[in-house]
Order: sequence, then structure tokens, then C-alpha cells
Amino acid sequence: MRSSLEIAQEASLKPIQQIAQSLGLHPDDLEQFGKYMAKIALSPEREKEIHKRPRGKYILVTATSPTPAGEGKTTTSIGLTQGLAYLGKKAIVTLRQPSLGPVFGVKGGAAGAGYSQVLPMEEINLGFTGDFSRVESAHNLAAAMLDNHIYRRKKPLFNVSSIQFRRAMDMNDRSLREIVIGLGQENGVSRATGFDITAASEIMAILALASDLQDLKMRMGEVVLGRDSDGKPIRIKDIKAEGAMATIMKQAIKPNLVQTYEGQPCIMHAGPFGNIAHGCSSIVGDKLALHLADYVVTEAGFGSDLGGEKFFDIKCRQSGLFPNAAVLVTTVKALKMHGGEPYDKENLKKENVAAMVRGFANLKKHLENIQAFGVPVVVALNKFPTDTEAEIQELEGFVKTSGAYGFAVSDGVADGGKGVAGLARLVDAAATANPNPKPQFMYDLEESIEEKMRKISQKVYGADDIVLGTGVKKKIKQLEEDGFGHLPICMAKTHLSLSDDPSKLGAPQGFNITISDIKISAGAGFIYPLVGKMMTMPGLGAIPAAESIDIDADGKVVGLF
Amino acid sequence: MRSSLEIAQEASLKPIQQIAQSLGLHPDDLEQFGKYMAKIALSPEREKEIHKRPRGKYILVTATSPTPAGEGKTTTSIGLTQGLAYLGKKAIVTLRQPSLGPVFGVKGGAAGAGYSQVLPMEEINLGFTGDFSRVESAHNLAAAMLDNHIYRRKKPLFNVSSIQFRRAMDMNDRSLREIVIGLGQENGVSRATGFDITAASEIMAILALASDLQDLKMRMGEVVLGRDSDGKPIRIKDIKAEGAMATIMKQAIKPNLVQTYEGQPCIMHAGPFGNIAHGCSSIVGDKLALHLADYVVTEAGFGSDLGGEKFFDIKCRQSGLFPNAAVLVTTVKALKMHGGEPYDKENLKKENVAAMVRGFANLKKHLENIQAFGVPVVVALNKFPTDTEAEIQELEGFVKTSGAYGFAVSDGVADGGKGVAGLARLVDAAATANPNPKPQFMYDLEESIEEKMRKISQKVYGADDIVLGTGVKKKIKQLEEDGFGHLPICMAKTHLSLSDDPSKLGAPQGFNITISDIKISAGAGFIYPLVGKMMTMPGLGAIPAAESIDIDADGKVVGLF
Repeated sequence: MRSSLEIAQEASLKPIQQIAQSLGLHPDDLEQFGKYMAKIALSPEREKEIHKRPRGKYILVTATSPTPAGEGKTTTSIGLTQGLAYLGKKAIVTLRQPSLGPVFGVKGGAAGAGYSQVLPMEEINLGFTGDFSRVESAHNLAAAMLDNHIYRRKKPLFNVSSIQFRRAMDMNDRSLREIVIGLGQENGVSRATGFDITAASEIMAILALASDLQDLKMRMGEVVLGRDSDGKPIRIKDIKAEGAMATIMKQAIKPNLVQTYEGQPCIMHAGPFGNIAHGCSSIVGDKLALHLADYVVTEAGFGSDLGGEKFFDIKCRQSGLFPNAAVLVTTVKALKMHGGEPYDKENLKKENVAAMVRGFANLKKHLENIQAFGVPVVVALNKFPTDTEAEIQELEGFVKTSGAYGFAVSDGVADGGKGVAGLARLVDAAATANPNPKPQFMYDLEESIEEKMRKISQKVYGADDIVLGTGVKKKIKQLEEDGFGHLPICMAKTHLSLSDDPSKLGAPQGFNITISDIKISAGAGFIYPLVGKMMTMPGLGAIPAAESIDIDADGKVVGLF
Repeated sequence: MRSSLEIAQEASLKPIQQIAQSLGLHPDDLEQFGKYMAKIALSPEREKEIHKRPRGKYILVTATSPTPAGEGKTTTSIGLTQGLAYLGKKAIVTLRQPSLGPVFGVKGGAAGAGYSQVLPMEEINLGFTGDFSRVESAHNLAAAMLDNHIYRRKKPLFNVSSIQFRRAMDMNDRSLREIVIGLGQENGVSRATGFDITAASEIMAILALASDLQDLKMRMGEVVLGRDSDGKPIRIKDIKAEGAMATIMKQAIKPNLVQTYEGQPCIMHAGPFGNIAHGCSSIVGDKLALHLADYVVTEAGFGSDLGGEKFFDIKCRQSGLFPNAAVLVTTVKALKMHGGEPYDKENLKKENVAAMVRGFANLKKHLENIQAFGVPVVVALNKFPTDTEAEIQELEGFVKTSGAYGFAVSDGVADGGKGVAGLARLVDAAATANPNPKPQFMYDLEESIEEKMRKISQKVYGADDIVLGTGVKKKIKQLEEDGFGHLPICMAKTHLSLSDDPSKLGAPQGFNITISDIKISAGAGFIYPLVGKMMTMPGLGAIPAAESIDIDADGKVVGLF
């Protein structure tokens, strides 16, 4: 089979105005970025007009616990959108934007695969419309103003050792994780800090959750930088940075329009991490998309325990939207791994029905997790060429007795929308059967921080209880005193297990969730407890992917997956 | 008078296709970035077609030694282009792109002023088409791969203490000047380094000098990162980063098209520093512009001693182009300052013919510097409302006896192209009188590094001789052994004086130029001797401009100068 890059390079794209027109958008509603990308920039009048249109159905795509390579949620979301179009439906897929850093690590692109990808693939993966760099600039402006404040003001606001705000760079750069800045003469006040990858910036989470530019500015002002000598939070608004940051973000808040391989619209906007942040594309994008099409397919990062739960408890709570149906993506490989087979690509390719059956426990728990929000779930097998008939039949049999709305094999990588038509039919039926979903959440905001963490851990992860690490109780008390007690919880936990231990496969039982630390994203509007050590700045591998990415003699990109 | 921002916001812009059409460009030659910005992206066929068109006249705009606030070269370049159009001529201005960092420092925007500015002003100053962030990403990818190499490889190529390649960020962030990275466990190898502002990145200089994407890639591969234990240079190609960097730079190499306040085309592309780099806009942009219009007005950073000399000896040498005429911009304020008046904005506003006359020495030397390249020079007074008739007449009288081609008052800020029509007439006459300029340089490439530095110092700065600091002789020998001896010289010197001492005003005599260090930009293709300490990462002021930059309730930018 041809590589995703080759398929992308041979695709014949429609002009982006044509994609926009298919959604009832006018040329004046667009700010083009080349021929195939645009920002949707509506005048207040057009915004009102469009938001009066009926609202389409909202489909969440989540997954079972992934292998380190991921289970193909993005690919399935794109395939499903093409599948709905194959059935004659008007659908949009809303996705997170890829981060540049990991492209040069081991990961390759992040805009789908094969015949279920978003185009233009190269531009999307290599900087796109500049939103990530604007998030980065806004973030780093606040950091520069913070250090300038410490250096310049005779009576600084801050207790320097309490500063939690770091700098941001969209690069896999291990060496910047822990650094000391401000060395030398007249170069500021020296202190320990570090860089996080831009996707981990709170500004990115804010971009994904803000309702408009004013809300974005207000939220950026609320970001907690550190604490003063009395322990009270110091915010970005205290150093007067949010106005200038908003001028940088003026363009970034406008959602981006691109297209799938088969010419269906994709709104690709914002890209927050799925662990220390909530891992969903923007509310601005989803709200708009729902008035532009009959079906909006959106993806949340990692499994139902992370992006899935956060989609409901954080994103839906803030947006006021709620999905009509959900898709739970799984792969034979992941189920085998959760059935105890070692993660070894060659090994997982071999037929092994018994291992897969042992892994069903993982699938079952994820299914129950989504059902607990009152949403019908269709299980989708993201098909690989090595999956055998016996494996597929066994899986189908299991799902049919599991209480899921249905099961479908999704073959979007090899076959585009046609290969996902079966899934699309089921999803359409499930969503149509649930036209007015009643929002349900895993916890009430009024509960205590501790109780909220406990409910997520017990109900979603299957834990016995939570255990608070040293000092966490005190920090919780402080957060409650600061007035943050009512915020939702964004658990920062490994995605490789339902528990907090990556080695615990399937549906672990008899474990506790240990909260090692607890932090605040007051601008994004959530508290994030750390369950184990989270990586907020990835590194490059022994042989980085970048070494084989190149421009050939014809100016064509090669080596991008 | 209204602020530049207000004037910009009230301007009625033409669609960028219309600007392109006026140059004989087709819609397919453009990649639009919104309605008013575009990248010019020619197919190989169109490129050939356009380069067959006759070549226009090439006008360099340089200046006398500026005050810290600058003398308005950009504004005069834009005004002159509008002035030429006012006379019915087809003209393009080619400029450097503004850097984001200084916008939030003290400087405000960098796209002209009043009725001689480039639009859309806000977008141009706040991220533009993303070229700076691409330069930054390409630069920092190389840095991440370099540190990854040191961390991963058992036998690293590098002598870690000899690494000269730093990281880049487009922010005025003093605290990042000197840092230690790679601290903590498994976070790489710890070492001292720092960040430069993106305009100071060698990748930026390369973008400005490269002839196309392949040349850009090749040059990036040549960038010297540091030295091995034998003292031999280690280049970016040795860590195989240039291919991936080129994929990031694929968009950045395409020149940007915008418009002036009066609707004349502006190609704004690349933005290298004028001290440690050569301070000129891109060769790609100028070459294209010369086949699209009858007059191309371009600006070089700082005075004739820096950007001016480098424009000829570095940019023209690499491009094979040579200007037909030059404009030397001066202000009454700068001449008063060089006549000994303290730099105090209020003081310099007061009429003071005597001080100005004392400052003529500075003007005279800059005039001679440009004439030494064989190019006719028109002196332009960039007019301020506080300039008096007596001052202007005295200046005009002096210039008329100085050997300049002519003198004109340029009032583009208040009056747009009409206010620069007189200058435009003179420039047209000067360029027409010199249709086939014969390239002349300040030194031969075959001379020794020391001799080249001496010639620039004596002929351009008026120094007695050069003095080599400790270890510089040895470094020169090493550079010659490495095969860099034939490269041109890019002196990194203060712009505030013709000498290396900012306090020496006018046309200093009886001084030496002390070379404190000497470095190599092998990708850009020049050697840069350090004459005093150069600031490659600016800081923020006590009250940063960012504190008053904001988005108002209507979503409009306020506080940007």
C-alpha cells in the first residue's frame, strides 16, 4: 500500500471556497491560507444568521486504552465523516491540530492515514495556519513579562520560588525540560524553570475552551503564574499581559477549514494535550460546525478514561452541547495487548483469538464508561490488513452481547468513506434514536475536589479509592480557599492503562489512584491532579524521524508518514 | 495628528489580487493569507516567463547614523514608492518583515508610519504570514537534534564546550540570554547556552540570501554548530537536520505581497538583524520585484556603515544585482545629535541650526560611503513637524555643495506619496542617468580576512586601523584553514556611531576598530567580526509597551504604535 504522504500528494483537492460553499458559507466568510486552507471569520451579522440555522447531530469518537502507537481515532473520525457523506449526509469532522514537535520525533503526521486523512497533509503537519506559533508567542510573552516584572519592580508581586508558569515551544526538546534562566549580568533574576511543548500550554487549553476573543482574553488574564509571599495566586492580569496576548491570539481564535481526502469539510482547531489538559478540539469550532452540517463528528484524546470523560465533564459542561451518539474505536492489536500479549508490532500481527478475548475486559469497561453518560455507543473496529476473519467474528459476537448500540468494521484507511459506510449507518441510527440527549456528568461541580477526584477514579477507572500524596491535602485546601473548589477536574493520568500504572492491562481491579500533586488551570477552568509523572516536553528518539524527512530535488516533501 | 494605528485602521485596502494584477500576476500565482496578504508562489513555468520581462531600476535606501529612535528609512522607502506612483511610475517597495518581540518592548510596529505605511499593519506586526515562526522552528529543530545527538550518541561528534549554535525566540526576553539546559534526570546533557531573538538567527540571514528552496536547504546544512575535539567545524548536515528544516521553510521562502497605504505593492520578506547579520530583505523578493515593476525601492538596516555597506558587499555580491541610485535618509534631529546635542526628544525639537551644521560631518561621511560604490545619491530629509524653515534651508544648501545628486524634503508621514513626489523625481532622474551600474565593492574577496576588515574600517568608518583582541588572530587563522577565508565580512558594530564607540558622534577620526571576537555564518556565507558586545536578545523596558496593547470591546487592536 502507498504511504499516507504519497496518497496525500496524489490527491486532487477542491478549492477551499468550494468546501465552504457546500456548507452555505460565502467567500467573504473566509480568510484563505493558500488555495486549500482557510480561517472562518464571520462578521457579527453572519455569525447571528448562521447560528439561527438548525443544529446538527453531535458524535463523539473515543477509544479503548490505546497501544503506544494509538488506535486510529482520528482516522476513524475522518473515515466516518466520509462514510456519512457516502450515505448522502452532510457531515463535518472537527479535530485537533497536529503539533509540529512530534512530527520530527517518531510519530509522523497526525491528520489521519491512507484514504481517511485530512488535506493538505504537509501544510497541516508543518505549521498549518500558524495557530500553534501564536499560542506559543502569547504564552512566552506572558513569561517574558513575568521575568521582566521580577527583574524591574523593586517590590515584586511574586515569591519567585512559587512560580509555576513555564515557557512553551512546539518542539520535542528534552534539554529544555529543566533549565536555569537569568544567568550572567543584567540578564534578569536567575531561577529554575523549563519549557513545555506548546500543546501543553494552558493558553492552548484556553483556545480550545473559549467562546470568543473577549472570553479568551478574560481567561488568559485568569491564568495563575505563581503565588505571592502570602501564598495568594498571582495571575496574568496582575502583570497586564492579557491584552497584548489577545492581539496575538486574534487570528488563532478563528477556526480553520480544510478537507478530507474525499472532499468532506474538516474544522481543525486547537490542540491541547489529553493528559494535563482536556484533549479536545475547540468549542468555537464545534458550535459553528453544528450549524453548518447535519452531523458533526469530533474526537477526544486517548481513551474514554481521559479525553472521553473530559469531553463530557469539561468540554460539554462549558459548551452546553451534548453528543447524540458515541463511537468507541478499538483495534485487534490493542485488545491483544490488553489480553497480555507483549507490545511488539510483529507479535501483535499474528492471529491470537484467545489473547484478544482476554482483552475484551478493557473494551467492556470503556463501553460502560461512555454509557454512564447516557449516550448510545457504537463500537468500531479500526481494521488492519493483519486482522483475521476469526478475530473479527469473535469481537463482533462479544460486542453484540455487551449492550453496545452496534458494531461495525471500519476500513477507512484502505477504502475511504465506502469502507466506513456500515459504521456511518449505525451511527446515524444511534444519533437519530437519541435526538435530545440529556446532559449527564460524572460528578457535580458543587462536590468537594476530593470527592470529584474519587468519583472519576472509582466510576471511570474502576479504582477502590484515591490516595493523596504528601502535601496534596494542603494544596486542595488552598485551592478551595482561592475559590477554585467549584471547577471541574482534569485528571493527568497515563493513557496506557485504565489505572495509574501503565503495566496494568485489561480492566484492572483492586487498585488505588495516587494523586501525587494538584495544580490549577484557572484560565482554562479546571483543576488538574497529577496521577504519576506527566511528560509535558517529549524528547527525540535515538534516530529522530527528522533525519529522514527531506525536500527532494523537485521540491517535494519526502519521509513524512 | 492621528496615530499610525488609527490611520491604518481607517485605510481602505484593495484586495490583494488587485495589487497582484497591477503587477501582471495571475490569481494562480498567489497563495492568499486572508484578503490583504499573499505569498507569491510561482510555478516553474511562470517563474521563467516573469524572469524574461525587462528588469526595473533598483534603488537603495540607507541613512545617516540614526538616533536610538531610527531615522525613518522604512517610512521614506514606502513614501518614495508612493511618490513614484504619484508620478505615474510602476514601483514596488521591498522591505524586511517586522519582528514580533520588539512590538511589545518599546518600539511599536515596524511597517512605516502615518500615510507612508504598509498594510494590514496589525497583521504584519503581529505574526504576518508565519515566516518568523518557521525560521524559529527550523532553527530550534536543529538545536533539539544537536542536543539529542550529544545525549544519544556514544561517541558524540562535538566538543560540547565549543558549541556556538544557540536557540531562537521572537520575544524580547532578557532572561533567556544566558541559561543552563539539560538539568535533571534523563533530560539530556547539561550545558550553558542561550536564546537569540529570531531575527538574529543565521537561518533568518540564510532566508534573506538564498536563491531558492534547494539553495536554502544546502546553506542550512552548512551552518556551523560548533567544533569537534580536533577543532574542526561540525555542521547542521552532520546531524542530518537540513532536510527536515527545509520542509518547515518550504512556505517561508515564498515572498509575501502586501500594499502601502496608497495601494502600491510591497514585497516584505525575511528580516535579519543589521549588526550580526546583513540587515537586508530577501534576494528572492528583490529579484522577482525587479521583473514586476519599473522601480524597486529597497531598504538596508541602520546607516551606510552597516546595512548600506553590507547591501553592496554581501547582498549585491550574492544576487548579482546592483542599484542604479541610492537615497540617504537623514533627519534634523539626528544631525543635531551628531552635532553634540544630547539625545532628548524635547531638546532635539527646538530650532538649533548651529548644532545641525556641526552634525553635517556625519552626513558627509555617509554620502561619501555610498558614492564610493559608484552610485549616485539623493539626500532625503525625513521631515518632522518641528523642523524649521531655517534648518531645512541650511541643510539643503549644504547638500547642494556636497556632491550629492540632489536634495529633497520627504514628507510621506503627513502627506503620503504627494509629500515624496519631489524626492521621487530626483531618484528617477538619478537612476535613469545610471542605467547600467558597474558593481564596485569595498574589498576583494581574495584579500585576507584581516585586510578585508581593515578596508571596511578605514574606508567606511574612517578608522586609522583595526586592533585584534585576544585570541582573534588565532581564530582568523582557523577560519582560513577551514576554507572560509574567501567569504565577505559582516561587521557587527554599533549603529549609533561611525566608530565602534556609541559616544563618538559626527565623523570621528583618530580611532581604531577593536575586533573583540570573530565568528562564522557559513550558511549565510559571511564572517562576522564582533566590534564590541552585540545584543542578540533584547529585553523589555520598565513598563513594556505590551502593558498598553489591548483588544477593545469591539475586537479592535489598540495601543500599537
